[in-house]
Amino acid sequence: MSELPKFVEFHEEGPREGFQIEKTHYPLERRAALIDALSESGLKQIQVGSFVSPKAVPTMADTADLFKAIKRNPDVRYTALWLNKKGFELAKATPEADMYAQIMFYASDAFSRANNNCSAEEMRDRQANWLEMYIENGLEVKNAYFMTAFGCNYSGEVPLSAVTDYVKWWVALCHDRDVKMPALYLADTVGWANPEEIKRRVGAVRELAPEARIGLHLHDTRGLGSANVYAALQMGVDLFDSSVAGLGGCPFSNHGDYGASGNVCTEDMVFMCQEMGIDTGIDLDALIEAACLAEDIIGRRLYGSIMHSGSLMSHRARAT
Amino acid sequence: MSELPKFVEFHEEGPREGFQIEKTHYPLERRAALIDALSESGLKQIQVGSFVSPKAVPTMADTADLFKAIKRNPDVRYTALWLNKKGFELAKATPEADMYAQIMFYASDAFSRANNNCSAEEMRDRQANWLEMYIENGLEVKNAYFMTAFGCNYSGEVPLSAVTDYVKWWVALCHDRDVKMPALYLADTVGWANPEEIKRRVGAVRELAPEARIGLHLHDTRGLGSANVYAALQMGVDLFDSSVAGLGGCPFSNHGDYGASGNVCTEDMVFMCQEMGIDTGIDLDALIEAACLAEDIIGRRLYGSIMHSGSLMSHRARAT
Repeated sequence: MSELPKFVEFHEEGPREGFQIEKTHYPLERRAALIDALSESGLKQIQVGSFVSPKAVPTMADTADLFKAIKRNPDVRYTALWLNKKGFELAKATPEADMYAQIMFYASDAFSRANNNCSAEEMRDRQANWLEMYIENGLEVKNAYFMTAFGCNYSGEVPLSAVTDYVKWWVALCHDRDVKMPALYLADTVGWANPEEIKRRVGAVRELAPEARIGLHLHDTRGLGSANVYAALQMGVDLFDSSVAGLGGCPFSNHGDYGASGNVCTEDMVFMCQEMGIDTGIDLDALIEAACLAEDIIGRRLYGSIMHSGSLMSHRARAT
Repeated sequence: MSELPKFVEFHEEGPREGFQIEKTHYPLERRAALIDALSESGLKQIQVGSFVSPKAVPTMADTADLFKAIKRNPDVRYTALWLNKKGFELAKATPEADMYAQIMFYASDAFSRANNNCSAEEMRDRQANWLEMYIENGLEVKNAYFMTAFGCNYSGEVPLSAVTDYVKWWVALCHDRDVKMPALYLADTVGWANPEEIKRRVGAVRELAPEARIGLHLHDTRGLGSANVYAALQMGVDLFDSSVAGLGGCPFSNHGDYGASGNVCTEDMVFMCQEMGIDTGIDLDALIEAACLAEDIIGRRLYGSIMHSGSLMSHRARAT
């Protein structure tokens, strides 16, 4: 048997990932109810929304109000995403938002240009400024994301060196500035990863930064989500972004007619961990209920599996 | 990196798995067109249908006609399923059917009783008679299936010993009768497997029958399909049943409102293999086309992923 971690942490991305892509602006009180249901499941971190341009992502325009509408569970971190200074200021002006600072690199230059209108190298250099700003604001950088770390729909293959170059740069910067090493997230932004490549890239990043916790942000675009998570678990990875019911996707990812796919499905991955004896601190039944609520809100069948098939608990209970 | 097999074989189950569960009886010529499309993709074995009671499974009543309607590709084995003598006689009377003999054990007694109206032990003893009958008919037994090898919706956990007891019995019978050891298939009939359990059970069966090729018949009921296949590949398994577009499911499996789930999706699993450098002999684009045809015939969105997201070939081609 492999050496799997004893405890795995899932950070819930569904409320942002799931609703940013939708054309419909779903009622705020329903989105708040979903976040409240998620926060009762044992999840320790939930991304509520993003402070981004209301023109580009109109469904995120009421993020500050959404923060005010949720029933805070003191055991949960409620985070937000921002991509520029204006967004950061809006987040700071929202006292309900837990200021969870992130740094973002793009392994694919083409993807950076398409998403940010600047080169990946420019984006990298801006991260040094972000780091200074976070230090000035008394914020610890919690995560560094390496986006398109497995491939890019615009430029194709992303060589491993494109990832490790940014990791090296960032590790050196952290050492220079005497900054505590944040979690290093490899993000499979557009669903290119396969299990063997997960192992290879996680192994390479761990070698460069053995002191860092490694996280994975995976999209289940091509049916390999659970295989990729399993491969990561085998590498000892114990930190994943995921989306309840598999909600979500990126609206700018060039995925063709059917749109992008969401993150790996939280409750399916929690189920996999539990079945393999890995603790997650999560009440699976409560999480499945939240997934069903998400489906009710969105109004169409969502991607998750065990929300439809049921977990194995009821079968086990019936049998004993 | 793990030691993965160099070549993996997928046996296509979609035409049977997919249509047996449907209430609609889809036009024979369309089902034949699907089989023809599959047979041009490089698949070496396709299960066309089953010779079973037309009362129990009315959509399989025209299986003999379906065999006559397909355009045979000489490189493809076109197989059928039968569960009793009458079915076997019907298959024999269909010259277009490749007589691919199978033996079936049930690790769960409750499942055997629900499906066959007899105990698992009775079913086991009947297999000796089937073996004799196949020998008399000059047929080699190609596969031995161990059904509900990972768990059962009626009786819950299936202990590993319930599987290995039947494997031992069968191995001894093969030795006694000087029969060439067929492939031993562990069937996750109702979607209970997880990757670690796959490894454990494949390992245990291999120890009992090191000379046997091991196959897996997996249903992607709970979102762990690709993880389970990946775990099996790591154990050197190179033989899988699968369904194009994820078609299918068992109508008698007690899965609740949403019905059973199909086998792991052929084209998604072929994609995973190809991405990891494993040959399958299959033209992925042709297989995706067949999956889209299946979706067109069924008339609703099917479960497969890359049939909707596309593989990575077009992205790679565009980038170079």
